Amino acid sequence: MREVAIVGAGMTRFGKYMDRSLKDLAREAVDAALESARIDKSTPQVAIVGNAAAGLAVGQECVRAQVVLREMGIEGIPMINTENACASSSTALQLAWLYVASGMYDVALAVGMEKTYLADKAKQFAMFTAGIDVELAQKMITHMKAAAEKAAGVATGQAGEPGKSRSVFMDIYAAGARAHMARYGTTKEQFVKVAVKNHYNGSLNPHAQYRERYSAEEIVASPLVAEPLHRLMCAPIGDGAAAAVLVAAHRVAQYTTKPVWICGSAIASGTDSRTPGITERAAKTAYEMAGIGPEDINVAEVHDATSPAEIILYEELGLCAPGEGGRLIDEGATEIGGRIPVNTSGGLLAKGHPVGATGIAQLYELFLQLRGEAGDRQVQGAKVGLTENGGGMVRGEAAAASVHILSI
Amino acid sequence: MREVAIVGAGMTRFGKYMDRSLKDLAREAVDAALESARIDKSTPQVAIVGNAAAGLAVGQECVRAQVVLREMGIEGIPMINTENACASSSTALQLAWLYVASGMYDVALAVGMEKTYLADKAKQFAMFTAGIDVELAQKMITHMKAAAEKAAGVATGQAGEPGKSRSVFMDIYAAGARAHMARYGTTKEQFVKVAVKNHYNGSLNPHAQYRERYSAEEIVASPLVAEPLHRLMCAPIGDGAAAAVLVAAHRVAQYTTKPVWICGSAIASGTDSRTPGITERAAKTAYEMAGIGPEDINVAEVHDATSPAEIILYEELGLCAPGEGGRLIDEGATEIGGRIPVNTSGGLLAKGHPVGATGIAQLYELFLQLRGEAGDRQVQGAKVGLTENGGGMVRGEAAAASVHILSI
Repeated sequence: MREVAIVGAGMTRFGKYMDRSLKDLAREAVDAALESARIDKSTPQVAIVGNAAAGLAVGQECVRAQVVLREMGIEGIPMINTENACASSSTALQLAWLYVASGMYDVALAVGMEKTYLADKAKQFAMFTAGIDVELAQKMITHMKAAAEKAAGVATGQAGEPGKSRSVFMDIYAAGARAHMARYGTTKEQFVKVAVKNHYNGSLNPHAQYRERYSAEEIVASPLVAEPLHRLMCAPIGDGAAAAVLVAAHRVAQYTTKPVWICGSAIASGTDSRTPGITERAAKTAYEMAGIGPEDINVAEVHDATSPAEIILYEELGLCAPGEGGRLIDEGATEIGGRIPVNTSGGLLAKGHPVGATGIAQLYELFLQLRGEAGDRQVQGAKVGLTENGGGMVRGEAAAASVHILSI
Repeated sequence: MREVAIVGAGMTRFGKYMDRSLKDLAREAVDAALESARIDKSTPQVAIVGNAAAGLAVGQECVRAQVVLREMGIEGIPMINTENACASSSTALQLAWLYVASGMYDVALAVGMEKTYLADKAKQFAMFTAGIDVELAQKMITHMKAAAEKAAGVATGQAGEPGKSRSVFMDIYAAGARAHMARYGTTKEQFVKVAVKNHYNGSLNPHAQYRERYSAEEIVASPLVAEPLHRLMCAPIGDGAAAAVLVAAHRVAQYTTKPVWICGSAIASGTDSRTPGITERAAKTAYEMAGIGPEDINVAEVHDATSPAEIILYEELGLCAPGEGGRLIDEGATEIGGRIPVNTSGGLLAKGHPVGATGIAQLYELFLQLRGEAGDRQVQGAKVGLTENGGGMVRGEAAAASVHILSI
């Protein structure tokens, strides 16, 4: 396979944009990526667009790529629509990489986009179950309603308006966090520290949805979602888009002196009785492709849908040994300035999580970091980065996980 | 890029299956494809699933591949969801081909599936506009309603229950047919002949949704949809699934002595001011990849959403000169036994058109034809085949077109 570099990337600030369409958000991200790559709209030879739920959100069931790209004057090239729930745009990224690495095209455009803030609150609530098996979802919702009635007044909102709606995923994340506490002695304080770190990092990122800094006390004072999760330890919903331009090695010099190379690209799904968990499987593939190990990673963006998830991901990605995730945050190793800074962008917690835009937004952060363009949150000397993006759940197993390894 | 062969393929009979789920349909097609390839569920290393509208149809907005494949015991492998309206599964086919051709995986499973018969008739009607820009769709629907009121009693149903609902695409197809008549002198009789041929072919195909034979008189006696289209000249809606197993050249001998090779794979979208129409562009790419021309094609499956579309496609694919499509059908060249048989399966008209299943179902027909396994509808000595699959419409331009070239 050919070597592939990212030569341009861009994103919207994530946020609540009730008056902006998907077309409008995608246009801003794509324009920024093209400008960053110093190319015009006619240069990409193929476009891959990741989006999770525009059918549900805005009624655009099909040909989302064509609808948004044609609107901005990108025409005539092959367009591929892809989806993998919250991992939709890292899936788009792998396909873009594959089109270029295989030799089929020299220049590919990868886009991720999502609208999750909706005027229709019933639809917005339905978004929370989009990433799971709908047959099972109906059963879960029935169960949740019964439980909520039983504990009336206790359950509060997350990923939505307080007390009104919340993601079914939050209960699953909370259970995972409690299991980690029971097994390894990880503490709620450690989970809170991750949230403090990521909100601090978000305060340094002009593209972050939330830019407030919070103390540990403020985080535990935010509404309880499900023990040990408080609201400020959970990713918000949001709208946004991100885009990247991928180019074959022999054409890189035309566009930039600062390429960021894709050294590993992996997607995994579900469980496999023969191998470890989904994230470990994706990471193993990506590390092997890149010919490196976790000890070589200088900076990482991971799928902190909740702050405990980030600690568990430290371990699954091999950034520390199993059970040592709590210690890693205690030591400050994953802060900017630490040994292996994680979620310098603010992560999903503070930068935001517009589902289908998240994967390429993670890439955008590393594009800046590896080029030394991350401003106040720059990781000094970063040469190798890793992104991890997860999505969906089917029969209690993560539906998709994607790991990419990038280097200069 | 590496050589890639199809070593197994399968499909459900297309039809109206009010009591069968997507999971159930996909399972039948995948089981058939795996059995055809003589492999078990653990052999594929990656799966790509094409589906246009399960979010709208059955509320499965995300991770459709994981939901249907996990249910049947396929687990742990990367799963990619893709969509390109009616060309969704030919897009899945290209991605499966790319994963294998690039060297990333040796064995890929490609699946197409769709449910379009729905108990909820409002949803079923909404399916007809799923493949276009929803903002524009709203305007079109308003316009259509006004026109229908004006011509009350004349407009009748197609792609749905008579007189109740119809696809907005049918007006566009009718206009295209009238333009071809005006420009080249093509006649309604010629369009009718295509329908006679395809319904005849469908009568020979056990997987076809409709297996009735019709005379030209019977076809023009069927309800008028929009001049010159009568109901039996338009594809019905339907439910179904199709699947194929793709393998790298060095592993083919493990599975079969009768591989069908993918020699060309192309996707195009929209218009491009620098090049001809979308189908011509996709065909040109596919022919160049295969190193052949249209004169080398022995059998073809094309996207006859209406019978005039088939005549226009003869020309766009280079099977005859521009304006000569009518003569080609008059000469019987595209009948079984003719020079270049087209839609031996019955095509979309008779085999049916469960949107996201159609692309791989076209492939399935050629898999049989090129292996000499097509029974009563076998094209003698067929060695090279072509599939053409179109999808969606954005700003009056086809959103996607895919051409694959296959050979033994």
